Amino acid sequence: MKLLRVGPAGAERPALLDGAGVLRDLSELVDDIDGRLLADDAALARVREAAAVGSLPELAADGLRTGAPLGRIGKIVCIGLNYTDHAAETGAKAPAEPVIFMKAPDTVVGPDDTVLVPRNSRKMDWEVELAIVIGRTARYLSSHEEALAAVAGYATSHDVSEREFQTERGGQWDKGKNCETFNPLGPWLVTADEIPDPQALALKLWVNGELQQNGSTADQIFPVAEVVRYVSQFMTLYPGDVINTGTPAGVAMGRPEPKPYLRAGDVVELEVEGLGRQRQTLEQA
Amino acid sequence: MKLLRVGPAGAERPALLDGAGVLRDLSELVDDIDGRLLADDAALARVREAAAVGSLPELAADGLRTGAPLGRIGKIVCIGLNYTDHAAETGAKAPAEPVIFMKAPDTVVGPDDTVLVPRNSRKMDWEVELAIVIGRTARYLSSHEEALAAVAGYATSHDVSEREFQTERGGQWDKGKNCETFNPLGPWLVTADEIPDPQALALKLWVNGELQQNGSTADQIFPVAEVVRYVSQFMTLYPGDVINTGTPAGVAMGRPEPKPYLRAGDVVELEVEGLGRQRQTLEQA
Repeated sequence: MKLLRVGPAGAERPALLDGAGVLRDLSELVDDIDGRLLADDAALARVREAAAVGSLPELAADGLRTGAPLGRIGKIVCIGLNYTDHAAETGAKAPAEPVIFMKAPDTVVGPDDTVLVPRNSRKMDWEVELAIVIGRTARYLSSHEEALAAVAGYATSHDVSEREFQTERGGQWDKGKNCETFNPLGPWLVTADEIPDPQALALKLWVNGELQQNGSTADQIFPVAEVVRYVSQFMTLYPGDVINTGTPAGVAMGRPEPKPYLRAGDVVELEVEGLGRQRQTLEQA
Repeated sequence: MKLLRVGPAGAERPALLDGAGVLRDLSELVDDIDGRLLADDAALARVREAAAVGSLPELAADGLRTGAPLGRIGKIVCIGLNYTDHAAETGAKAPAEPVIFMKAPDTVVGPDDTVLVPRNSRKMDWEVELAIVIGRTARYLSSHEEALAAVAGYATSHDVSEREFQTERGGQWDKGKNCETFNPLGPWLVTADEIPDPQALALKLWVNGELQQNGSTADQIFPVAEVVRYVSQFMTLYPGDVINTGTPAGVAMGRPEPKPYLRAGDVVELEVEGLGRQRQTLEQA
Protein backbone atom coordinates (compact mmCIF):
# COMPACT_ATOMS: atom_id res chain seq x y z
CA MET A 1 0.00 0.00 0.00
CA LYS A 2 0.96 3.60 -0.56
CA LEU A 3 -0.10 5.46 2.59
CA LEU A 4 0.03 9.22 2.80
CA ARG A 5 -1.23 12.27 4.69
CA VAL A 6 -2.84 15.18 2.89
CA GLY A 7 -4.10 18.60 3.91
CA PRO A 8 -2.78 21.65 5.74
CA ALA A 9 0.42 21.30 7.79
CA GLY A 10 -0.45 20.06 11.26
CA ALA A 11 -3.96 19.01 10.20
CA GLU A 12 -3.24 16.30 7.65
CA ARG A 13 -5.73 13.48 7.10
CA PRO A 14 -4.72 9.88 6.40
CA ALA A 15 -5.10 8.72 2.82
CA LEU A 16 -4.18 5.95 0.43
CA LEU A 17 -3.10 6.04 -3.19
CA ASP A 18 -4.78 3.05 -4.79
CA GLY A 19 -3.54 0.81 -7.59
CA ALA A 20 -5.23 3.01 -10.18
CA GLY A 21 -3.53 6.13 -8.83
CA VAL A 22 -6.72 7.42 -7.19
CA LEU A 23 -6.42 9.19 -3.84
CA ARG A 24 -8.67 7.60 -1.19
CA ASP A 25 -9.69 8.98 2.19
CA LEU A 26 -8.76 6.82 5.19
CA SER A 27 -10.00 9.15 7.90
CA GLU A 28 -13.07 7.08 8.70
CA LEU A 29 -10.94 3.97 9.18
CA VAL A 30 -7.87 5.28 11.01
CA ASP A 31 -6.92 8.36 13.07
CA ASP A 32 -3.56 8.92 11.47
CA ILE A 33 -0.67 7.21 9.72
CA ASP A 34 1.55 6.76 12.76
CA GLY A 35 3.37 4.22 14.86
CA ARG A 36 0.19 3.02 16.50
CA LEU A 37 -1.37 2.14 13.14
CA LEU A 38 1.81 0.52 11.83
CA ALA A 39 1.99 -1.75 14.89
CA ASP A 40 -1.69 -2.74 14.55
CA ASP A 41 -1.99 -5.64 12.12
CA ALA A 42 -5.78 -5.74 12.39
CA ALA A 43 -6.15 -2.04 11.54
CA LEU A 44 -3.76 -2.39 8.60
CA ALA A 45 -5.72 -5.42 7.40
CA ARG A 46 -8.94 -3.38 7.50
CA VAL A 47 -7.31 -0.68 5.37
CA ARG A 48 -6.02 -3.26 2.92
CA GLU A 49 -9.42 -4.92 2.67
CA ALA A 50 -11.26 -1.61 2.18
CA ALA A 51 -8.79 -0.68 -0.57
CA ALA A 52 -9.25 -4.06 -2.24
CA VAL A 53 -13.04 -3.92 -2.32
CA GLY A 54 -13.05 -0.28 -3.44
CA SER A 55 -15.10 1.00 -0.51
CA LEU A 56 -12.88 3.97 0.36
CA PRO A 57 -14.21 7.41 -0.60
CA GLU A 58 -12.27 9.24 -3.30
CA LEU A 59 -10.45 12.46 -2.35
CA ALA A 60 -10.09 15.35 -4.79
CA ALA A 61 -6.32 15.63 -5.15
CA ASP A 62 -6.40 19.02 -6.88
CA GLY A 63 -4.64 21.70 -4.88
CA LEU A 64 -4.29 19.38 -1.88
CA ARG A 65 -0.97 19.63 -0.06
CA THR A 66 0.88 16.38 0.64
CA GLY A 67 2.31 16.22 4.14
CA ALA A 68 4.92 13.84 5.49
CA PRO A 69 3.42 10.33 5.32
CA LEU A 70 3.99 9.64 9.01
CA GLY A 71 2.71 11.54 12.04
CA ARG A 72 3.97 11.54 15.65
CA ILE A 73 7.46 10.40 14.66
CA GLY A 74 9.33 9.28 17.77
CA LYS A 75 12.90 9.71 16.63
CA ILE A 76 14.91 9.91 13.44
CA VAL A 77 18.13 7.92 13.47
CA CYS A 78 20.50 8.72 10.62
CA ILE A 79 23.29 6.60 9.18
CA GLY A 80 26.33 8.52 7.94
CA LEU A 81 28.73 7.60 5.14
CA ASN A 82 26.78 4.48 4.14
CA TYR A 83 27.81 4.49 0.47
CA THR A 84 31.46 3.92 -0.47
CA ASP A 85 31.39 6.57 -3.21
CA HIS A 86 29.92 9.20 -0.86
CA ALA A 87 32.41 8.42 1.91
CA ALA A 88 35.20 8.80 -0.65
CA GLU A 89 33.93 12.14 -1.98
CA THR A 90 33.85 13.59 1.54
CA GLY A 91 37.41 12.44 2.15
CA ALA A 92 36.33 9.87 4.75
CA LYS A 93 37.20 6.19 4.89
CA ALA A 94 34.36 3.72 4.53
CA PRO A 95 33.26 3.15 8.14
CA ALA A 96 33.95 -0.17 9.85
CA GLU A 97 30.53 -0.03 11.49
CA PRO A 98 27.55 2.28 10.97
CA VAL A 99 27.96 5.94 11.94
CA ILE A 100 24.85 7.13 13.82
CA PHE A 101 23.56 10.66 14.27
CA MET A 102 20.09 12.11 14.94
CA LYS A 103 17.55 14.47 13.50
CA ALA A 104 14.65 15.82 15.56
CA PRO A 105 11.15 14.88 14.34
CA ASP A 106 10.30 18.60 14.21
CA THR A 107 12.58 18.96 11.16
CA VAL A 108 10.14 16.88 9.09
CA VAL A 109 8.04 18.63 6.43
CA GLY A 110 6.04 17.44 3.44
CA PRO A 111 7.79 16.36 0.23
CA ASP A 112 6.95 19.56 -1.65
CA ASP A 113 7.05 22.06 1.21
CA THR A 114 9.37 25.04 1.20
CA VAL A 115 12.81 24.30 2.64
CA LEU A 116 14.47 27.17 4.51
CA VAL A 117 18.09 28.22 4.07
CA PRO A 118 19.29 28.86 7.64
CA ARG A 119 20.48 32.34 8.50
CA ASN A 120 24.26 32.55 8.20
CA SER A 121 24.32 29.41 6.08
CA ARG A 122 27.04 29.19 3.45
CA LYS A 123 27.25 25.45 2.88
CA MET A 124 23.74 24.05 2.60
CA ASP A 125 23.75 20.67 0.89
CA TRP A 126 21.39 18.00 -0.40
CA GLU A 127 21.20 14.25 0.35
CA VAL A 128 18.65 11.89 -1.19
CA GLU A 129 18.06 8.89 1.08
CA LEU A 130 16.01 5.76 1.55
CA ALA A 131 14.09 6.08 4.83
CA ILE A 132 13.04 3.03 6.82
CA VAL A 133 9.83 3.35 8.86
CA ILE A 134 9.70 1.08 11.91
CA GLY A 135 6.54 -0.93 12.65
CA ARG A 136 7.63 -3.21 15.52
CA THR A 137 9.65 -2.55 18.66
CA ALA A 138 13.23 -3.56 17.87
CA ARG A 139 15.60 -4.22 20.77
CA TYR A 140 18.84 -6.21 20.60
CA LEU A 141 17.79 -8.02 17.44
CA SER A 142 19.94 -11.01 16.61
CA SER A 143 19.25 -11.58 12.92
CA HIS A 144 18.53 -9.84 9.65
CA GLU A 145 15.21 -11.68 9.48
CA GLU A 146 14.10 -10.11 12.76
CA ALA A 147 15.31 -6.75 11.51
CA LEU A 148 13.28 -6.88 8.30
CA ALA A 149 10.23 -8.02 10.27
CA ALA A 150 10.47 -4.76 12.26
CA VAL A 151 10.24 -2.64 9.09
CA ALA A 152 6.74 -1.30 8.30
CA GLY A 153 7.75 0.37 5.07
CA TYR A 154 9.92 2.84 3.23
CA ALA A 155 9.84 6.45 2.09
CA THR A 156 11.87 8.97 0.13
CA SER A 157 13.77 11.21 2.54
CA HIS A 158 15.80 14.38 2.05
CA ASP A 159 18.51 14.63 4.72
CA VAL A 160 19.21 18.34 4.21
CA SER A 161 22.57 19.30 5.71
CA GLU A 162 24.59 22.43 6.47
CA ARG A 163 28.23 21.39 6.17
CA GLU A 164 29.80 24.30 8.03
CA PHE A 165 27.40 23.81 10.95
CA GLN A 166 27.96 20.03 10.70
CA THR A 167 31.73 19.86 10.69
CA GLU A 168 33.34 23.26 11.31
CA ARG A 169 31.47 24.58 14.35
CA GLY A 170 32.71 22.35 17.13
CA GLY A 171 32.05 18.74 17.65
CA GLN A 172 29.07 16.79 16.49
CA TRP A 173 27.21 16.56 13.17
CA ASP A 174 23.76 17.15 14.71
CA LYS A 175 24.40 20.91 14.67
CA GLY A 176 24.15 20.94 10.88
CA LYS A 177 21.33 18.40 10.56
CA ASN A 178 18.54 19.87 12.68
CA CYS A 179 17.70 23.23 11.13
CA GLU A 180 13.95 23.78 10.63
CA THR A 181 12.47 22.09 7.50
CA PHE A 182 15.63 19.97 7.08
CA ASN A 183 13.85 16.64 6.58
CA PRO A 184 11.28 16.53 3.75
CA LEU A 185 9.69 13.07 3.88
CA GLY A 186 7.38 11.29 1.46
CA PRO A 187 5.18 11.58 -0.54
CA TRP A 188 4.28 8.01 0.44
CA LEU A 189 4.95 5.44 3.08
CA VAL A 190 5.12 2.31 0.91
CA THR A 191 4.52 -0.80 2.95
CA ALA A 192 7.37 -3.30 3.01
CA ASP A 193 5.41 -6.00 1.15
CA GLU A 194 5.57 -3.80 -1.97
CA ILE A 195 9.37 -3.43 -1.80
CA PRO A 196 10.61 -7.01 -2.17
CA ASP A 197 14.28 -5.91 -2.34
CA PRO A 198 15.19 -2.65 -0.58
CA GLN A 199 18.75 -3.08 -1.89
CA ALA A 200 17.77 -2.57 -5.52
CA LEU A 201 16.32 0.95 -5.53
CA ALA A 202 17.62 3.79 -7.68
CA LEU A 203 18.07 7.15 -5.91
CA LYS A 204 18.19 10.38 -7.91
CA LEU A 205 18.40 14.07 -7.06
CA TRP A 206 18.32 17.15 -9.27
CA VAL A 207 19.11 20.78 -8.46
CA ASN A 208 17.46 23.30 -10.78
CA GLY A 209 16.79 20.47 -13.22
CA GLU A 210 20.35 19.14 -13.33
CA LEU A 211 20.98 15.58 -12.14
CA GLN A 212 23.38 15.65 -9.17
CA GLN A 213 22.97 12.28 -7.46
CA ASN A 214 22.34 9.02 -9.28
CA GLY A 215 22.89 6.02 -7.08
CA SER A 216 21.43 2.73 -5.97
CA THR A 217 20.75 1.20 -2.59
CA ALA A 218 22.68 -1.78 -3.98
CA ASP A 219 25.78 0.23 -3.05
CA GLN A 220 24.94 0.66 0.63
CA ILE A 221 27.81 -0.47 2.81
CA PHE A 222 25.34 -1.55 5.51
CA PRO A 223 22.06 -2.73 3.99
CA VAL A 224 18.65 -2.09 5.54
CA ALA A 225 18.54 -5.34 7.52
CA GLU A 226 21.99 -4.74 9.01
CA VAL A 227 21.23 -1.10 9.80
CA VAL A 228 18.12 -2.06 11.79
CA ARG A 229 19.88 -4.94 13.55
CA TYR A 230 22.88 -2.76 14.38
CA VAL A 231 20.94 0.28 15.63
CA SER A 232 18.87 -2.01 17.88
CA GLN A 233 22.05 -2.91 19.82
CA PHE A 234 22.44 0.72 20.93
CA MET A 235 18.90 2.03 21.20
CA THR A 236 15.40 0.64 21.16
CA LEU A 237 13.47 1.34 17.98
CA TYR A 238 9.72 1.87 18.33
CA PRO A 239 6.83 1.86 15.84
CA GLY A 240 6.82 5.27 14.18
CA ASP A 241 10.59 5.75 14.35
CA VAL A 242 12.44 6.54 11.12
CA ILE A 243 15.94 5.65 9.96
CA ASN A 244 17.56 7.67 7.17
CA THR A 245 19.97 5.17 5.65
CA GLY A 246 22.57 7.48 4.10
CA THR A 247 23.19 9.11 0.76
CA PRO A 248 25.15 8.10 -2.36
CA ALA A 249 27.79 10.28 -4.00
CA GLY A 250 27.00 13.56 -5.72
CA VAL A 251 26.54 16.06 -2.89
CA ALA A 252 27.85 19.65 -3.16
CA MET A 253 30.48 18.99 -0.49
CA GLY A 254 32.14 16.43 -2.76
CA ARG A 255 32.64 18.81 -5.71
CA PRO A 256 35.67 20.90 -6.66
CA GLU A 257 35.72 24.54 -5.51
CA PRO A 258 33.65 26.57 -5.81
CA LYS A 259 31.29 23.93 -4.43
CA PRO A 260 27.70 24.39 -5.63
CA TYR A 261 26.03 24.79 -2.23
CA LEU A 262 22.31 25.55 -2.15
CA ARG A 263 20.84 29.05 -2.08
CA ALA A 264 17.43 30.64 -1.76
CA GLY A 265 15.56 30.23 -5.04
CA ASP A 266 17.07 26.85 -5.89
CA VAL A 267 14.70 23.99 -6.67
CA VAL A 268 15.62 20.49 -5.46
CA GLU A 269 13.85 17.40 -6.79
CA LEU A 270 14.54 13.89 -5.62
CA GLU A 271 13.15 10.40 -5.79
CA VAL A 272 13.77 6.88 -4.62
CA GLU A 273 12.54 4.24 -7.05
CA GLY A 274 8.97 3.22 -6.24
CA LEU A 275 8.69 5.61 -3.29
CA GLY A 276 7.72 8.81 -5.07
CA ARG A 277 9.22 12.16 -5.91
CA GLN A 278 9.80 15.36 -3.92
CA ARG A 279 10.18 18.95 -5.12
CA GLN A 280 11.27 21.77 -2.82
CA THR A 281 11.85 25.44 -3.48
CA LEU A 282 14.38 27.03 -1.14
CA GLU A 283 13.69 30.28 0.70
CA GLN A 284 15.76 32.30 3.11
CA ALA A 285 14.84 31.68 6.77
CA MET B 1 5.72 26.07 41.16
CA LYS B 2 6.95 22.51 41.36
CA LEU B 3 5.10 20.59 38.66
CA LEU B 4 5.33 16.84 38.39
CA ARG B 5 3.68 13.74 36.94
CA VAL B 6 2.81 10.76 39.11
CA GLY B 7 1.47 7.29 38.49
CA PRO B 8 2.29 4.27 36.33
CA ALA B 9 4.73 4.76 33.42
CA GLY B 10 2.80 5.94 30.40
CA ALA B 11 -0.27 6.85 32.45
CA GLU B 12 1.05 9.61 34.71
CA ARG B 13 -1.27 12.30 35.99
CA PRO B 14 -0.27 15.96 36.38
CA ALA B 15 0.39 17.13 39.92
CA LEU B 16 1.88 19.95 41.95
CA LEU B 17 3.98 19.94 45.07
CA ASP B 18 2.71 22.86 47.12
CA GLY B 19 4.66 25.17 49.42
CA ALA B 20 3.91 22.93 52.39
CA GLY B 21 5.26 19.86 50.56
CA VAL B 22 1.80 18.43 49.96
CA LEU B 23 1.16 16.65 46.65
CA ARG B 24 -1.86 18.10 44.82
CA ASP B 25 -3.79 16.66 41.88
CA LEU B 26 -3.89 18.84 38.76
CA SER B 27 -5.77 16.43 36.54
CA GLU B 28 -9.03 18.36 36.72
CA LEU B 29 -7.28 21.56 35.62
CA VAL B 30 -4.83 20.37 32.94
CA ASP B 31 -4.43 17.33 30.68
CA ASP B 32 -0.71 16.93 31.18
CA ILE B 33 2.49 18.77 32.01
CA ASP B 34 3.68 19.31 28.46
CA GLY B 35 4.68 21.93 25.92
CA ARG B 36 1.10 22.96 25.31
CA LEU B 37 0.58 23.78 28.99
CA LEU B 38 3.92 25.56 29.31
CA ALA B 39 3.07 27.81 26.34
CA ASP B 40 -0.37 28.64 27.77
CA ASP B 41 -0.07 31.55 30.19
CA ALA B 42 -3.77 31.48 31.07
CA ALA B 43 -3.69 27.77 31.98
CA LEU B 44 -0.54 28.25 34.07
CA ALA B 45 -2.19 31.20 35.82
CA ARG B 46 -5.20 29.01 36.67
CA VAL B 47 -2.89 26.41 38.19
CA ARG B 48 -1.04 29.06 40.17
CA GLU B 49 -4.27 30.57 41.43
CA ALA B 50 -5.73 27.19 42.42
CA ALA B 51 -2.52 26.38 44.30
CA ALA B 52 -2.61 29.76 46.08
CA VAL B 53 -6.19 29.43 47.29
CA GLY B 54 -5.69 25.81 48.30
CA SER B 55 -8.47 24.41 46.12
CA LEU B 56 -6.48 21.55 44.61
CA PRO B 57 -7.31 18.05 45.90
CA GLU B 58 -4.58 16.33 47.89
CA LEU B 59 -3.00 13.19 46.43
CA ALA B 60 -1.79 10.34 48.61
CA ALA B 61 1.94 10.22 47.84
CA ASP B 62 2.53 6.83 49.49
CA GLY B 63 3.73 4.25 47.02
CA LEU B 64 3.06 6.53 44.08
CA ARG B 65 5.68 6.43 41.34
CA THR B 66 7.08 9.74 40.15
CA GLY B 67 7.40 9.95 36.38
CA ALA B 68 9.37 12.44 34.34
CA PRO B 69 7.84 15.87 34.98
CA LEU B 70 7.24 16.56 31.28
CA GLY B 71 5.19 14.58 28.75
CA ARG B 72 5.33 14.64 24.94
CA ILE B 73 8.89 15.92 24.86
CA GLY B 74 9.69 17.10 21.33
CA LYS B 75 13.45 16.83 21.36
CA ILE B 76 16.34 16.74 23.79
CA VAL B 77 19.31 18.87 22.82
CA CYS B 78 22.47 18.20 24.82
CA ILE B 79 25.46 20.45 25.38
CA GLY B 80 28.81 18.68 25.63
CA LEU B 81 31.90 19.72 27.59
CA ASN B 82 30.19 22.76 29.14
CA TYR B 83 32.29 22.82 32.34
CA THR B 84 36.01 23.56 32.17
CA ASP B 85 36.89 20.94 34.78
CA HIS B 86 34.90 18.23 32.96
CA ALA B 87 36.42 19.11 29.58
CA ALA B 88 39.86 18.87 31.19
CA GLU B 89 39.19 15.47 32.83
CA THR B 90 38.14 14.00 29.47
CA GLY B 91 41.31 15.30 27.83
CA ALA B 92 39.38 17.81 25.67
CA LYS B 93 40.00 21.52 25.33
CA ALA B 94 37.28 23.86 26.52
CA PRO B 95 35.13 24.35 23.40
CA ALA B 96 35.11 27.70 21.59
CA GLU B 97 31.37 27.40 21.05
CA PRO B 98 28.79 24.96 22.43
CA VAL B 99 29.06 21.31 21.35
CA ILE B 100 25.60 19.97 20.48
CA PHE B 101 24.37 16.39 20.40
CA MET B 102 20.93 14.78 20.79
CA LYS B 103 19.04 12.30 22.92
CA ALA B 104 15.73 10.80 21.80
CA PRO B 105 12.71 11.61 24.02
CA ASP B 106 12.10 7.86 24.37
CA THR B 107 15.20 7.62 26.60
CA VAL B 108 13.41 9.60 29.32
CA VAL B 109 12.28 7.79 32.46
CA GLY B 110 11.21 8.90 35.93
CA PRO B 111 13.81 10.07 38.47
CA ASP B 112 13.71 6.85 40.49
CA ASP B 113 13.05 4.35 37.72
CA THR B 114 15.40 1.48 37.00
CA VAL B 115 18.22 2.35 34.61
CA LEU B 116 19.39 -0.45 32.33
CA VAL B 117 23.00 -1.34 31.66
CA PRO B 118 23.10 -1.94 27.88
CA ARG B 119 24.13 -5.38 26.69
CA ASN B 120 27.83 -5.41 25.83
CA SER B 121 28.39 -2.27 27.87
CA ARG B 122 31.77 -1.91 29.54
CA LYS B 123 31.96 1.85 30.06
CA MET B 124 28.63 3.09 31.38
CA ASP B 125 29.01 6.47 33.04
CA TRP B 126 27.02 9.06 35.00
CA GLU B 127 26.45 12.78 34.35
CA VAL B 128 24.36 15.03 36.62
CA GLU B 129 22.99 17.98 34.64
CA LEU B 130 20.77 21.02 34.84
CA ALA B 131 17.97 20.60 32.27
CA ILE B 132 16.24 23.59 30.72
CA VAL B 133 12.59 23.12 29.74
CA ILE B 134 11.44 25.36 26.87
CA GLY B 135 8.12 27.21 27.12
CA ARG B 136 8.19 29.53 24.08
CA THR B 137 9.21 28.92 20.47
CA ALA B 138 12.81 30.10 20.15
CA ARG B 139 14.18 30.84 16.68
CA TYR B 140 17.23 32.97 15.89
CA LEU B 141 17.09 34.76 19.24
CA SER B 142 19.25 37.85 19.40
CA SER B 143 19.67 38.40 23.14
CA HIS B 144 20.04 36.66 26.46
CA GLU B 145 16.84 38.37 27.63
CA GLU B 146 14.88 36.72 24.82
CA ALA B 147 16.57 33.42 25.63
CA LEU B 148 15.58 33.48 29.30
CA ALA B 149 12.03 34.47 28.33
CA ALA B 150 11.80 31.21 26.34
CA VAL B 151 12.64 29.10 29.42
CA ALA B 152 9.61 27.63 31.21
CA GLY B 153 11.60 26.02 33.97
CA TYR B 154 14.32 23.65 35.08
CA ALA B 155 14.75 20.05 36.16
CA THR B 156 17.38 17.64 37.41
CA SER B 157 18.59 15.46 34.52
CA HIS B 158 20.80 12.40 34.36
CA ASP B 159 22.59 12.25 31.00
CA VAL B 160 23.58 8.59 31.26
CA SER B 161 26.36 7.75 28.80
CA GLU B 162 28.21 4.72 27.45
CA ARG B 163 31.72 5.93 26.66
CA GLU B 164 32.79 3.08 24.40
CA PHE B 165 29.62 3.42 22.33
CA GLN B 166 30.04 7.22 22.42
CA THR B 167 33.64 7.57 21.31
CA GLU B 168 35.14 4.24 20.23
CA ARG B 169 32.50 2.84 17.88
CA GLY B 170 32.77 5.09 14.86
CA GLY B 171 31.84 8.68 14.62
CA GLN B 172 29.22 10.48 16.61
CA TRP B 173 28.44 10.66 20.33
CA ASP B 174 24.72 9.91 19.87
CA LYS B 175 25.51 6.17 19.70
CA GLY B 176 26.41 6.18 23.40
CA LYS B 177 23.71 8.56 24.57
CA ASN B 178 20.49 6.95 23.36
CA CYS B 179 20.29 3.58 25.07
CA GLU B 180 16.91 2.87 26.66
CA THR B 181 16.35 4.52 30.09
CA PHE B 182 19.39 6.77 29.57
CA ASN B 183 17.70 10.02 30.60
CA PRO B 184 16.09 10.03 34.06
CA LEU B 185 14.37 13.42 34.45
CA GLY B 186 12.81 15.13 37.46
CA PRO B 187 11.33 14.75 40.02
CA TRP B 188 10.02 18.27 39.41
CA LEU B 189 9.76 20.83 36.69
CA VAL B 190 10.43 23.98 38.74
CA THR B 191 9.10 27.07 36.98
CA ALA B 192 11.69 29.69 36.09
CA ASP B 193 10.27 32.31 38.48
CA GLU B 194 11.46 30.13 41.38
CA ILE B 195 15.03 29.92 40.08
CA PRO B 196 16.17 33.56 40.08
CA ASP B 197 19.76 32.63 39.17
CA PRO B 198 20.24 29.40 37.18
CA GLN B 199 24.01 30.01 37.36
CA ALA B 200 24.18 29.47 41.11
CA LEU B 201 22.97 25.89 41.54
CA ALA B 202 24.98 23.13 43.18
CA LEU B 203 25.03 19.78 41.32
CA LYS B 204 25.89 16.57 43.17
CA LEU B 205 26.00 12.89 42.26
CA TRP B 206 26.72 9.83 44.36
CA VAL B 207 27.40 6.22 43.34
CA ASN B 208 26.64 3.65 46.04
CA GLY B 209 26.61 6.46 48.58
CA GLU B 210 29.98 7.96 47.63
CA LEU B 211 30.05 11.52 46.34
CA GLN B 212 31.44 11.54 42.78
CA GLN B 213 30.39 14.88 41.30
CA ASN B 214 30.20 18.11 43.26
CA GLY B 215 29.94 21.13 41.01
CA SER B 216 28.05 24.34 40.41
CA THR B 217 26.32 25.81 37.39
CA ALA B 218 28.44 28.90 38.18
CA ASP B 219 31.21 27.02 36.34
CA GLN B 220 29.32 26.52 33.08
CA ILE B 221 31.37 27.77 30.14
CA PHE B 222 28.16 28.72 28.31
CA PRO B 223 25.43 29.76 30.75
CA VAL B 224 21.74 28.95 30.30
CA ALA B 225 20.89 32.18 28.46
CA GLU B 226 23.77 31.74 26.00
CA VAL B 227 22.96 28.06 25.45
CA VAL B 228 19.36 28.85 24.50
CA ARG B 229 20.37 31.81 22.30
CA TYR B 230 23.09 29.76 20.60
CA VAL B 231 21.01 26.64 19.96
CA SER B 232 18.25 28.81 18.44
CA GLN B 233 20.67 29.83 15.66
CA PHE B 234 20.87 26.21 14.46
CA MET B 235 17.48 24.73 15.25
CA THR B 236 14.09 25.99 16.34
CA LEU B 237 13.23 25.21 19.95
CA TYR B 238 9.57 24.51 20.73
CA PRO B 239 7.58 24.42 23.97
CA GLY B 240 8.21 21.03 25.53
CA ASP B 241 11.77 20.71 24.24
CA VAL B 242 14.53 20.02 26.77
CA ILE B 243 18.17 21.07 26.83
CA ASN B 244 20.65 19.14 28.99
CA THR B 245 23.30 21.76 29.74
CA GLY B 246 26.34 19.58 30.42
CA THR B 247 28.00 17.99 33.42
CA PRO B 248 30.75 19.11 35.82
CA ALA B 249 33.86 17.07 36.59
CA GLY B 250 33.77 13.76 38.42
CA VAL B 251 32.60 11.22 35.86
CA ALA B 252 34.09 7.72 35.69
CA MET B 253 35.76 8.46 32.35
CA GLY B 254 37.90 11.13 34.05
CA ARG B 255 39.37 8.78 36.67
CA PRO B 256 42.63 6.84 36.67
CA GLU B 257 42.52 3.23 35.54
CA PRO B 258 40.72 1.07 36.44
CA LYS B 259 37.94 3.59 35.85
CA PRO B 260 34.90 2.98 38.06
CA TYR B 261 32.32 2.48 35.31
CA LEU B 262 28.77 1.56 36.33
CA ARG B 263 27.50 -1.99 36.69
CA ALA B 264 24.23 -3.74 37.38
CA GLY B 265 23.40 -3.38 41.07
CA ASP B 266 24.95 0.06 41.46
CA VAL B 267 22.79 2.82 42.92
CA VAL B 268 23.16 6.34 41.53
CA GLU B 269 21.74 9.35 43.36
CA LEU B 270 21.88 12.90 42.06
CA GLU B 271 20.45 16.31 42.67
CA VAL B 272 20.53 19.84 41.38
CA GLU B 273 19.97 22.46 44.08
CA GLY B 274 16.27 23.30 44.38
CA LEU B 275 15.23 20.88 41.63
CA GLY B 276 14.99 17.66 43.62
CA ARG B 277 16.82 14.38 43.93
CA GLN B 278 16.91 11.19 41.84
CA ARG B 279 17.79 7.64 42.83
CA GLN B 280 18.27 4.85 40.31
CA THR B 281 19.19 1.22 40.73
CA LEU B 282 20.97 -0.29 37.74
CA GLU B 283 19.91 -3.56 36.17
CA GLN B 284 21.25 -5.51 33.24
CA ALA B 285 19.26 -4.97 30.01
